[in-house]
Amino acid sequence: MSERDIIQPRTLKGFRDFLPSAMRAREWLIETARDVCRSYGYAPIDTPALEYTDILLGKGGAESDKQLYRFEDGGGRDVAMRFDLTVPLARFAAQHIGELGVPFKRYHVGPVWRGENTQRGRYREFVQFDFDTIGTESLVADAETILVIHDTFDSLAIGEFSIRINNRELLGGVLAELELAEHSGHVLRIVDKLTKVGRGGVIAELRELVGASPAQADRLLDAVTLTGSNEEILTAVADLATGAADSVVAALTSVLDGLAAAGVAANRTRIDMSIARGLDYYTGTVFETFLADAPDIGSVCSGGRYDDLASLYTKQRLPGVGAAIGIDRLLAALEGSRHLQTTDAGAPILVALFDADRAADYLGLAATLRRAGLAVELYPDGKRLGSQLKYADRKGHRLVVIVGDTEWESGTAQVKDMVSGDSHTVAASELAAECRRLLQLPEQG
Amino acid sequence: MSERDIIQPRTLKGFRDFLPSAMRAREWLIETARDVCRSYGYAPIDTPALEYTDILLGKGGAESDKQLYRFEDGGGRDVAMRFDLTVPLARFAAQHIGELGVPFKRYHVGPVWRGENTQRGRYREFVQFDFDTIGTESLVADAETILVIHDTFDSLAIGEFSIRINNRELLGGVLAELELAEHSGHVLRIVDKLTKVGRGGVIAELRELVGASPAQADRLLDAVTLTGSNEEILTAVADLATGAADSVVAALTSVLDGLAAAGVAANRTRIDMSIARGLDYYTGTVFETFLADAPDIGSVCSGGRYDDLASLYTKQRLPGVGAAIGIDRLLAALEGSRHLQTTDAGAPILVALFDADRAADYLGLAATLRRAGLAVELYPDGKRLGSQLKYADRKGHRLVVIVGDTEWESGTAQVKDMVSGDSHTVAASELAAECRRLLQLPEQG
Repeated sequence: MSERDIIQPRTLKGFRDFLPSAMRAREWLIETARDVCRSYGYAPIDTPALEYTDILLGKGGAESDKQLYRFEDGGGRDVAMRFDLTVPLARFAAQHIGELGVPFKRYHVGPVWRGENTQRGRYREFVQFDFDTIGTESLVADAETILVIHDTFDSLAIGEFSIRINNRELLGGVLAELELAEHSGHVLRIVDKLTKVGRGGVIAELRELVGASPAQADRLLDAVTLTGSNEEILTAVADLATGAADSVVAALTSVLDGLAAAGVAANRTRIDMSIARGLDYYTGTVFETFLADAPDIGSVCSGGRYDDLASLYTKQRLPGVGAAIGIDRLLAALEGSRHLQTTDAGAPILVALFDADRAADYLGLAATLRRAGLAVELYPDGKRLGSQLKYADRKGHRLVVIVGDTEWESGTAQVKDMVSGDSHTVAASELAAECRRLLQLPEQG
Repeated sequence: MSERDIIQPRTLKGFRDFLPSAMRAREWLIETARDVCRSYGYAPIDTPALEYTDILLGKGGAESDKQLYRFEDGGGRDVAMRFDLTVPLARFAAQHIGELGVPFKRYHVGPVWRGENTQRGRYREFVQFDFDTIGTESLVADAETILVIHDTFDSLAIGEFSIRINNRELLGGVLAELELAEHSGHVLRIVDKLTKVGRGGVIAELRELVGASPAQADRLLDAVTLTGSNEEILTAVADLATGAADSVVAALTSVLDGLAAAGVAANRTRIDMSIARGLDYYTGTVFETFLADAPDIGSVCSGGRYDDLASLYTKQRLPGVGAAIGIDRLLAALEGSRHLQTTDAGAPILVALFDADRAADYLGLAATLRRAGLAVELYPDGKRLGSQLKYADRKGHRLVVIVGDTEWESGTAQVKDMVSGDSHTVAASELAAECRRLLQLPEQG
């Protein structure tokens, strides 16, 4: 075959392969969030990657906003790849909620696609992890949503984090008091940029785009940048906001009390009046999550309460609350940090192989170790020990089990610790226990 | 909003939603296979859903065969959704094997898309689980591939299963002896239909399509339907085949010896000369897996050894061996069988809630149970106990924890066993231990 005959292997712009080290980290993030969701009784669902375009865009949805991968399928249907997991959830709930009943708690993990500009380092395919509780207005569900975020980031142990909480109605009360209520959608989207463009930038936009007076803009910024304890902020903002404020303050207080009762440290949940969540969608509690060790990437898990999930697809009103973790975005933030191991962390043990004629014996030896609960890779080729040790070092195997002719004959095995470099010989019958000891695993019962 | 304004919620033909019960089963299949792969040192990878069409189709690939979802993206690229995980692996290996080194063992789980005719109950989106060892010709890798299949189906415990093993070279030897070698690709694809069309059908096709004589067709069918012990079959076929047969018989024997040494029961692995695997791709060991309780669906996990994985994309020869589990196909086969639980098997415990003003106390109680390693769903709304018990029954919660005013005041909790119907009261401090006991979980240390 000539050079010309080879098809250049390549991925599409904005798409990437996940090599084992990145994929192991992605699996770890997903499995941690999934285990927490399961411990709260969330159930898994899945929906198709492809949907009818009208389902995804809704009425008057701006395709360009979503950067849709849209095409006509073989049957002439106008179809597109999902751009998030929220729209599919709304469609799913409209279709199945009668069968499933409420409250319905689901998690959903999968890729979504957006043909975004790749210049800002954005990918066009990324995995999201969403979880929602549908069909209840209870604040218990708001508190549990925040608890899932808390427990997930607590389990991940990727440094300190803070969940910043607000309530759209409280912000709405402030806007009403400032006579900015009629522009509220627009105002909230502007306020949402506070960390990006700063106080001056937000004030300028408020004056320019919604015609706020200097006093209005100033007072709004004072409100959204209130500092102090959660109680102090709530007291101060209650003075600023009108009407419904008392009940909203009570709602936020109830959520905070629930978090405290569940054992969440006070410094991890802060009332932050600047958390507006640009989306019109949210109507009650809203929250974002920030990592102390990665402040620049913004919120790594956001969500909130909505009045009506699926009004596009059903007349049944479905209130709920949920959040989403941008798994691949979080992964990108962690790459290169001390929180991700740099070596692959696969099977901790490599069994070296020297004699292909003894293949069955090596397969039996590896099987014995696996039956003792150990993950074991068996090197397949009878190469020199040096090559196999080099392979173990590169792959990050912690122990190498070495059994050559001498060991087979004497019923022993050598175990080499790749971290300390130490090597010693044990009876074959003791090998599994010795490996468990060196790996600091508990003894088997 | 008028009736007309609602967008009818619906999925595309050939696509389906996964509700919790189906999704839990899919997760269980995937997690079982994944855990086994990890225990053998396979590493996870992922590749994009979308690829350049020329990558997926290769040279002269027949698009119609693959029923591609193909379109032009926003940047004018000719792209398509992947139709399997093998072609992406080949492209991936060509691109990254220098960095990863060999042997390289990977698993890959994800959806693939084919616009197939849906009349036969086929879906157009389905999840595959592939695992391969690349860059070695060692038969140890063949044996380990079969061991992963064995351990996966053994762990799933979905009834007895049999892995049928053959070697393409052995079949090739038989074909050479019968002077059918020049048509071998075609002949193997015909033989591959044996279970579908029967002996008569295969003989008719062999005569019609490749011009085999009655004697040739008969002798071939005799060879591929040989019965007896593995040794008897190998002895008989060695007599039929020419040339390379001795080394091929030795290779098959070595694989079988390895399986036996690893503890695989003899009745689970059978030499079956009719396993041809239609694909030209395979060159050595081939295997298929059949479930005793679902014989009609054919092989649920197939694979084999290939000489050269990625010749379309690189000049580096990459031999290897691997297999694929059609997760959604297997799931479909299990749906409705005794091997799948009919009720949802989410969190085993539901904590009932009666008084919204005590939300924080209930959140604290649920948190205490979770810290004791129990998965707990907290009912969010203060509905009547009857409604909450009905919910628990429908969702398959095993225990309901009931704490009303009386219990809060006396520091106790009622635990209701939804299977036996029994209910009794324990001290709040004993609740977690009592739940663990009722769920037959080991005591916490």
